[in-house]
Amino acid sequence: MRQHPLQNITASEIRRAADVVRRGIKSRGNVTSIRFKYITLHEPPKALLMPYLDAESDNVPVALRPFVPRLVAVLYADESGLEAFESIVSLDTGTEVDVIKLLAGQQAPNDGGQPRQFIQTILHDSSVIAAISKLNLPAGATVYCDPWSYGTDKFSHTDTPARIQAYLYVCTSPHPESNQYAFPLPISPVLDVAENRVIRIDTLATGGIEDGLDHNIGSDALLAHCPPKEFHQDLLEIPVRTDLKPLHVVQPEGPSFAVSDKNLVQWQKWRFRVGFHYREGLTIHDVRYDGRKVFYRLSMSELTVPYGDPRAPYHRKQAFDIGDGGAGACSNVLGLGCDCLGLIQYFNAWMADENGEAEESRNVICMHEQDSGIGWKHSNRRTGVASITRGRTLVLQNILTLMNYDYIFAWIFHQNGTVEFETRATGVVSTAPIDKGARSPWGNVVAPGVLAQNHQHFFCLRIDPMIDGTRNTLVQAESVALPETEDNPFGNAWTVQKSVFEKSTFADAAPEKNRVFKIINESHHNHMSGNPVGYTLVPLPSQMLLAGKNSVIRQRARFAEHHIWVTRYRDGDLWAGGQWTEQSMKETNGVSDYAARNEDVKNEDIVLWHTIGMSHSPTPEQFPVMGVETLSVALRPSDFFEFNPALDVPRSTQAINNSVQVERKRCETC
Amino acid sequence: MRQHPLQNITASEIRRAADVVRRGIKSRGNVTSIRFKYITLHEPPKALLMPYLDAESDNVPVALRPFVPRLVAVLYADESGLEAFESIVSLDTGTEVDVIKLLAGQQAPNDGGQPRQFIQTILHDSSVIAAISKLNLPAGATVYCDPWSYGTDKFSHTDTPARIQAYLYVCTSPHPESNQYAFPLPISPVLDVAENRVIRIDTLATGGIEDGLDHNIGSDALLAHCPPKEFHQDLLEIPVRTDLKPLHVVQPEGPSFAVSDKNLVQWQKWRFRVGFHYREGLTIHDVRYDGRKVFYRLSMSELTVPYGDPRAPYHRKQAFDIGDGGAGACSNVLGLGCDCLGLIQYFNAWMADENGEAEESRNVICMHEQDSGIGWKHSNRRTGVASITRGRTLVLQNILTLMNYDYIFAWIFHQNGTVEFETRATGVVSTAPIDKGARSPWGNVVAPGVLAQNHQHFFCLRIDPMIDGTRNTLVQAESVALPETEDNPFGNAWTVQKSVFEKSTFADAAPEKNRVFKIINESHHNHMSGNPVGYTLVPLPSQMLLAGKNSVIRQRARFAEHHIWVTRYRDGDLWAGGQWTEQSMKETNGVSDYAARNEDVKNEDIVLWHTIGMSHSPTPEQFPVMGVETLSVALRPSDFFEFNPALDVPRSTQAINNSVQVERKRCETC
Repeated sequence: MRQHPLQNITASEIRRAADVVRRGIKSRGNVTSIRFKYITLHEPPKALLMPYLDAESDNVPVALRPFVPRLVAVLYADESGLEAFESIVSLDTGTEVDVIKLLAGQQAPNDGGQPRQFIQTILHDSSVIAAISKLNLPAGATVYCDPWSYGTDKFSHTDTPARIQAYLYVCTSPHPESNQYAFPLPISPVLDVAENRVIRIDTLATGGIEDGLDHNIGSDALLAHCPPKEFHQDLLEIPVRTDLKPLHVVQPEGPSFAVSDKNLVQWQKWRFRVGFHYREGLTIHDVRYDGRKVFYRLSMSELTVPYGDPRAPYHRKQAFDIGDGGAGACSNVLGLGCDCLGLIQYFNAWMADENGEAEESRNVICMHEQDSGIGWKHSNRRTGVASITRGRTLVLQNILTLMNYDYIFAWIFHQNGTVEFETRATGVVSTAPIDKGARSPWGNVVAPGVLAQNHQHFFCLRIDPMIDGTRNTLVQAESVALPETEDNPFGNAWTVQKSVFEKSTFADAAPEKNRVFKIINESHHNHMSGNPVGYTLVPLPSQMLLAGKNSVIRQRARFAEHHIWVTRYRDGDLWAGGQWTEQSMKETNGVSDYAARNEDVKNEDIVLWHTIGMSHSPTPEQFPVMGVETLSVALRPSDFFEFNPALDVPRSTQAINNSVQVERKRCETC
Repeated sequence: MRQHPLQNITASEIRRAADVVRRGIKSRGNVTSIRFKYITLHEPPKALLMPYLDAESDNVPVALRPFVPRLVAVLYADESGLEAFESIVSLDTGTEVDVIKLLAGQQAPNDGGQPRQFIQTILHDSSVIAAISKLNLPAGATVYCDPWSYGTDKFSHTDTPARIQAYLYVCTSPHPESNQYAFPLPISPVLDVAENRVIRIDTLATGGIEDGLDHNIGSDALLAHCPPKEFHQDLLEIPVRTDLKPLHVVQPEGPSFAVSDKNLVQWQKWRFRVGFHYREGLTIHDVRYDGRKVFYRLSMSELTVPYGDPRAPYHRKQAFDIGDGGAGACSNVLGLGCDCLGLIQYFNAWMADENGEAEESRNVICMHEQDSGIGWKHSNRRTGVASITRGRTLVLQNILTLMNYDYIFAWIFHQNGTVEFETRATGVVSTAPIDKGARSPWGNVVAPGVLAQNHQHFFCLRIDPMIDGTRNTLVQAESVALPETEDNPFGNAWTVQKSVFEKSTFADAAPEKNRVFKIINESHHNHMSGNPVGYTLVPLPSQMLLAGKNSVIRQRARFAEHHIWVTRYRDGDLWAGGQWTEQSMKETNGVSDYAARNEDVKNEDIVLWHTIGMSHSPTPEQFPVMGVETLSVALRPSDFFEFNPALDVPRSTQAINNSVQVERKRCETC
C-alpha cells in the first residue's frame, strides 16, 4: 500500500533516492565521487496534494484517492564542494525529474560529516598549533574548536570559495562536560572548505573601554583571570538545592491523543500530520479542527543570529541556523523525564548521511499534554456557584543545538482552536575573550575574561492558512478612537478599523494601535457576528534588525526587516531567507522577493510570515548557561466559531483532578 | 505576643477597630447610625516598618525588634452615605489617631450589603416594574439586575449625589445558573443612593448600522431572536467532550514551600509575606531572595474598564474594579481541584461587613507549585550529553468576580529570581441588546440580539522595589544601532543606551527600540559585569486609553495614559487612580499626581508603576463565556546575580520525574 503523501521519508526511500542520483551521475559521467548534503522529502505540489487531503477527509478509501507523486530532494556535491546539484527524484518512476546546478554565490550547506572534518583540519594545522602554543596554555589544557558559517561582508564576492571560521576555546578540566565557553581563545582560524586547509588565522580584539577596544590580549597569564564556570552537575562548585520536592504528572487513563498511520495525530477535535525535515525540523500539515480546514502547513522557516560587535572578524558572526545548520539535522535526541513530564509520545525520523546511507534520528519530536491552568471561569454573584474548566494543551516539541545555543521549538494546540508557537532560547551564550577588568560597549562581561556580545535572534514563522478553504485574505485591524464631536459627545467612542491587503507585501506590528492581522475567508461568514470567518495573529512587536541599511547582514536577512509578510502561495516558496543562506550575500528568492512580486493576495491562496526577534545583551545571570528566554505567538480563532469552542470541555472538579489540600494548624486567635 | 506588623487583620482587630470608631462617633455626637464601608489594615509607615523587617531578617528576637504601631483604616458613613469618614484607629492605644471627612466629589465605595439593597429597590420600583411590563416578557421569565458604578461625564458635577446605574437581564429558564447575559433588556434604571430610590429609567439604543444606531428596540417579540446561550453544564445544549483523560499533579513528598507565622512563605530561596486587603486583594511584602532585599511591596493598584459605545448611557460604563469594587471584597472562594492542580495551600482572610462584624473570607488566596517546562538546557555537541533542569514556579492566585467579568490575578515566583504577574480575564463579556440582524460599529454581535461592546481593560501594577536596599534608581535602556561609519565598517554594531530618571515622571513602552526599564541600586555593583545590580521590567506595549483628551474617562484614569510611572515613595501613595474612584470626575491624588510632584527619584526610595491594557472587541468565540485572555509581565534579575541563579536547581532526570513513554507499534517498513 502506498504511504500517505505527508508521511516522512523512510530509510528505504533515502537509499532508493541516493541510488537514483548515483545512477544519474554515472550516466552523465560528470563527477566521480560525491557527498550527499541532504536527502529529504520534496513535498508534492499543493494542486495535487490538496485534492488528496480532501478525499482523505471525505473518507475516500486510499486506493480511490488521486495519485500524488512521491518526490525526494537530494542535494549533493563533488568532494571539493565546488560543484553542487539539487536533484528531484521521483520514487514512482525511479528517475530524476529535475537536476539544478547551484550557481555562483549559491553554496550548499555542510553535510553531517563536515564539521568533524573541519575540526580535525583546524586543530591539526601547523599554523594553528603554532598560534596556540604562543598562548602558553597550561599543560593538560584541551583546545576545542567550534566551526562557524563564514558571514559575508561588503568586501565579499559571490565567487568567494566556501569558508569556515572557527572559534577556539580551552578547558583546563579533563572532564568531557567542562564548559569550554568560559575560556575563549583570542585567535580565529579560517578554513577554505574546498581545499580543506587553513588559509589564515584572524586575531581577535580583546580590549575594553579601559585599554582600547581593538587591543589584543597578551599571551601572558591568559588563564589567570579566567576561572572555570561550569554547569554540568559533576563540576558544580555550589551545592545543588535539596528542598525541591518531586512533582509528577500522572495520567492514569492514558493520553487523550491518538497517533495512527505513522504521523496522523488526533486530539480534542484537532487532526493533523506531523512532519520532520532535514532543514525545518518539525512541521505541521493539514491542520483541521472538528473537520474544518485551518492550516495547510506550519513551520519555522528561518532563524538568523547576527552579532553586534563591529571588530573584525566578529562581524562575520551571523548564523542562519535553519538555512545553514538545519533544524532537523541539529535536533536533540529527547529523553524521557528530561524534556517533558507525564505521558510522552516520541517520533523518530530518518535522515541521510554524506554517503547516502539512512540514519535514524530517534526521539527528535516529543508530544505530550499539559495542563494550562484555568481555561475559563465564571462565578455567579447571586448563587456563589462557579463554572470552571481547566485548559489542556497538546505540545509538540523539537529541540535544536547549534554549537553553543539551544532552541526549544514547540507547536501548542489548545482546546479552543488556538494554535501557539513558542520558542525558548537557552544553552550557552557565544563568548569572546576580554582583557582583565575591561568592559565593552559591544556586550557585557559575564565572567572574568568572558565577553558575551550583543546579538539578535530572528525567527521567521511560515503560516500557510486554509481557513475554511485555501482562498483567504489578510486583513489588518486597529482599534481607533473617534474624534470628540457631537457624535461622540463624551469622548469614549472607539471602533475597529480594518484594511485589506490587496497585493503581496510586508507590514509591521503596532501595539500602540492594537494592530492585529486577521486571516479571513471572504466566502464564509459567522452567523452570529456576520463577519467573515477568520484567525487572528497578534504580532510580537519585537525590535527588528539593527544592522545598517547597507550592511550585508541586512541584505541577506531581509525577512528580519518587518514583522509581517503576506505572499501569494507558490510551491517551494518555503525559505524566508532564501534557499541558499550559507555565505549568502543577499536574501535571494526569500520572502522579500516573494512579496516583491506584487501579486494579488485578496481571496487567493496566501501565506503569512511572522518574524519575531530578541535583542540580547547578555547579563551574568545568563552564564555559564542561560535560563530560557521565551517568545510565544498565537493564531486564534476570531469569528471562526459561533460560540466559545471550549464550552464543551468537561468542568474542573476535584473528583477528576485529585488535588490535595495542604493542611496547617488553624489559627487559634483569629 | 504581638503579631507581625504585616500579618493580616484579624476578626478581633476588626471588632476592636469598629468599637473604637463607634465610641469616637458617640463622643462627637455627630451621627447616630452608621454603615461600615471597610475595616482594613492600615500599613505602618515604611520608616518604622523597614527597621523591623531588617531586625527580623537579622534574626533579632521579636521582643527586641523596634515597635511598630498596629493601625486600622475604617471607612464609615451615615445611613444615607452623604457623610463619610475615614478613621485611622490605633489598636495599640484603642484610639482614633486621625479622622478624615470625605470632601465633595469624594464618594465612599459601596459596602458589601449595598448591592443587594440596590437590586431590591430597583426591581421593586413601580416605574421599573411598569417599564418591564411594557417589554411583554414571557410568563415565568426572571429579571435580573446588575448594579453598576455610575460613570461620570462632562456634564457631571462634583456635588452629584451618589448614583447607581443598573443593567437588566432576563432568563427564561428557572435554573438559577441560567446565563442572564444572553438577554440584556433595553432599559437602565438609575438609582439615587442616598434617597434609595429610582430617579429615572434610561432607554438603551439598540439599533445597528442597518436601522440607525440610535434606534430603540420595539417591545414586540423581544425574546424571539434571542435564544438562551448557556454555559452551566446542567444547561448545555451540546454534549461535553468525553475524550479528555484525567491529568493529575502528584507531589509524593509534599510541597517544596513552607508557611509559618501565619503568612510567611519560604520557597526556593524566596521569603515573603502574603497580605490580603479589602481593596487590593492579594499583596506581597518584604520579598527577599537568598536573604537579599528585592521588593518591599507588590500589588495590583487599580483596574478600570471603560467602554467605547458613545450612545448614552453606555458612556457611563467605566468600572473601577479595585477602587470601586475592591479586589479583596470581590474575591472568590477557591475550590480544591477547580482552580489549581497538585498540592494547594489556601489562605483565609477576615473582612468587615457593614455592621462592623468580622466575616471570614475562606480560601481567597491559593498557593501551589507548577512545573514550568524546561528551565535551561544545553547539549554538548561533542559528547551528546545534555544538561537540563526543569523550571518550577510558586503561584499565588486570587480570583475576582465583578458582575459579569472574572479576573485571575497571580504572582508567580521563579527559581531564578524572576517575579511574574499574570492576569487572566475571563467570565462573561458585558452585553447590550441589539436589533435582530443588526450590526454595530461599537462592538460585535456575539449571539442573536446580543451586542458585546468594545472596551478596554487597564491594570496598574504597583512595584515598590528594594533592590539590595530601598535607595534605587530607574534606568531606561534601549538597543541602538551605530551609524555605518569607519568605526562600524560592516554596519553590524549596536549597543545599549541608558538614561537615568532624575525626577518622578511617566514613560512609555517602545518595543521597536527594545526599550526596557531597569531598577538599579547605584551603590551595589555586579562583580562580573561591573554594572549596578538591578531588576529589569520589559513593559507590555499595550494600547493605552482610547478615550479622548477631554473625556472624563481619561481625566479620571490618567494612570492609563502611559505604561510606566516612576514616583518617589510616600506612605499611602497606593492608588493609581486616586483613593476615591467611585463616581470620580478626575484622578485625584493618583499616580499622575504623585509623578507631577517632580521629585528626585535618583538613588531614592522609588516606586515603579506599570499599566497594562487590553483593547477588547469581543467575538462570538467569547460568548456565552470567555476563554482566558492572558497578560503577563515579569521583573527579572539583571546584573543582580553573578551567575545563573538556577544553576543549583537539581537536574531533570527520569528517576525524579517518573514520566511514561507512550508505546506504539514500531513501524515495520521504515
